[in-house]
Amino acid sequence: MPSPIAFVSRSPDANEAEWTDVLSAAMPDETIISVRAMTGEQQSATEIAIVANPDPSDIAKLANLKWIHSLWAGVERLVAELGPAAPPIVRLTDPELTRVMAEAVLAWTYYLHRDMPAYREQQQNRVWQELDYRHPKDVTVGLIGIGTLGTASATRLVQAGFNVLGWSRSAKALDGVTTLSGEQGLGELLSKSDIVVCLVPLTAETRGLINASRLATMKRGASLINFARGAVVVADDLISALDSGQVSHAVLDVFEREPLDTQSLFWAHPKVTVLPHISAPTNRKTSAAIVAENILNWRNAGALPKTVDMERGY
Amino acid sequence: MPSPIAFVSRSPDANEAEWTDVLSAAMPDETIISVRAMTGEQQSATEIAIVANPDPSDIAKLANLKWIHSLWAGVERLVAELGPAAPPIVRLTDPELTRVMAEAVLAWTYYLHRDMPAYREQQQNRVWQELDYRHPKDVTVGLIGIGTLGTASATRLVQAGFNVLGWSRSAKALDGVTTLSGEQGLGELLSKSDIVVCLVPLTAETRGLINASRLATMKRGASLINFARGAVVVADDLISALDSGQVSHAVLDVFEREPLDTQSLFWAHPKVTVLPHISAPTNRKTSAAIVAENILNWRNAGALPKTVDMERGY
Repeated sequence: MPSPIAFVSRSPDANEAEWTDVLSAAMPDETIISVRAMTGEQQSATEIAIVANPDPSDIAKLANLKWIHSLWAGVERLVAELGPAAPPIVRLTDPELTRVMAEAVLAWTYYLHRDMPAYREQQQNRVWQELDYRHPKDVTVGLIGIGTLGTASATRLVQAGFNVLGWSRSAKALDGVTTLSGEQGLGELLSKSDIVVCLVPLTAETRGLINASRLATMKRGASLINFARGAVVVADDLISALDSGQVSHAVLDVFEREPLDTQSLFWAHPKVTVLPHISAPTNRKTSAAIVAENILNWRNAGALPKTVDMERGY
Repeated sequence: MPSPIAFVSRSPDANEAEWTDVLSAAMPDETIISVRAMTGEQQSATEIAIVANPDPSDIAKLANLKWIHSLWAGVERLVAELGPAAPPIVRLTDPELTRVMAEAVLAWTYYLHRDMPAYREQQQNRVWQELDYRHPKDVTVGLIGIGTLGTASATRLVQAGFNVLGWSRSAKALDGVTTLSGEQGLGELLSKSDIVVCLVPLTAETRGLINASRLATMKRGASLINFARGAVVVADDLISALDSGQVSHAVLDVFEREPLDTQSLFWAHPKVTVLPHISAPTNRKTSAAIVAENILNWRNAGALPKTVDMERGY
């Protein structure tokens, strides 16, 4: 009988029961127990924690923890709260989540390319007017972030015929995509793109990345899609850019505080599409299968997938 | 010097000048003249008419007309007004228009699949709530009409992972698509599809095709996209089906009378997306190149592309 696995999430709610059910079904030979339900002896014996937004004090109860499996791809809060002394962290990279994100990038790119917000406004005013159609090859989509999610998104956009630019911190090549890097590369992407899509992880470097000066660098009347993290975009700066016409529309799926505050100016802004963090929802079943495989490999061979770089934060 | 080509459109407006300019540029060896600007002698000499919604009395002026090239793909009005004695009619099949229509079908399928109208309504009410995500393989898209436009649309939907059904009058096979035909096949498509897309030409048989009884056959809560012709759907029946919840949303790009009457109930209906006939706008440049090629082939070899079947109406 292997040592128990601790499930650690911040608020014990229905989600915790749903997750432990699905995880237990995916790993019938393992015992998965909420850290709060463990005896002191079980906590001492625990080598693996599966976490979803855990309280650091709960992690601290697990004195002999060998590694942590995050159920999310975004681990910025975990890294910040556990600090450099944390055991190795594996973040979830679910191909199904990647597929859904790439689908969302294409779907909301079409939303903007085919002028759906503008036609919606015309409908409200009973205006019948055809807007100019642009061939996708004449529409430049700039992806800020070409990691797993950005690369999959780029592939779908290229297949759909768009002109695609991709930016990463350090230089990187991608088939069919003009890649850029560094501060100068970011400026070039912003000045050339008709649609800018944020897909970077939230780190010390990307916090506030899209601020007033970078918004001013954008092509006048371009659009923004934020599918990364709310804090990557400075909310007040974006609202100013929308109000001045510098940015024509923003599709926002992520916010600094979620759920989005009912007082937020974004809700009623005519140039903003608010989504409730649904661009790539976690699929419990496919996620649990991946976590199970990673745990099995570690049990059998001591092997871990690539773990989070605590310096870089992802 | 070949005989002049007559350009025939109902109302002499800016479009006529724009069209004759683009057509003349594509056929520098031809003389293209508006039928109204022709001398009687020129009218008698004319063998070819290029038409955009022509007045039948203008066509009648061309006593020695050999054939007609329509600038539209939809020729229902032309067929009805000219009748069986008309010279052969070639309708425009522009690969670029086909590409844009298939793109529109995918874009507005994503609009419905990714719940954009529902999230828009939530935004208006400041509601933050994730709706269930369905994998495209679990979403059935039923195409009514699998001619050139339907086939291209099916290809893109299949590539995007949707479960695709395709209906045609007579049986037809399509890779990756479950094809259906006849009245029973139409009932099966309507009862199984989550999203029904109309792409049939308007004929005596398709006029009023989507009426109360067929809407009642649909899966409860399914959606409708009409990119064909307004008269394919019975407007009052659709509004009843939307009001009862039988149909959850309709994307309408075409209407019996266009521009859509400012008094139409569609404009303000919360479950209707009104588009101003923009799913596949005509591209003058690519269209003119195709017309030019067809005319050159006829001049050189007497060959015509497949012409309209006046009985079937397309």
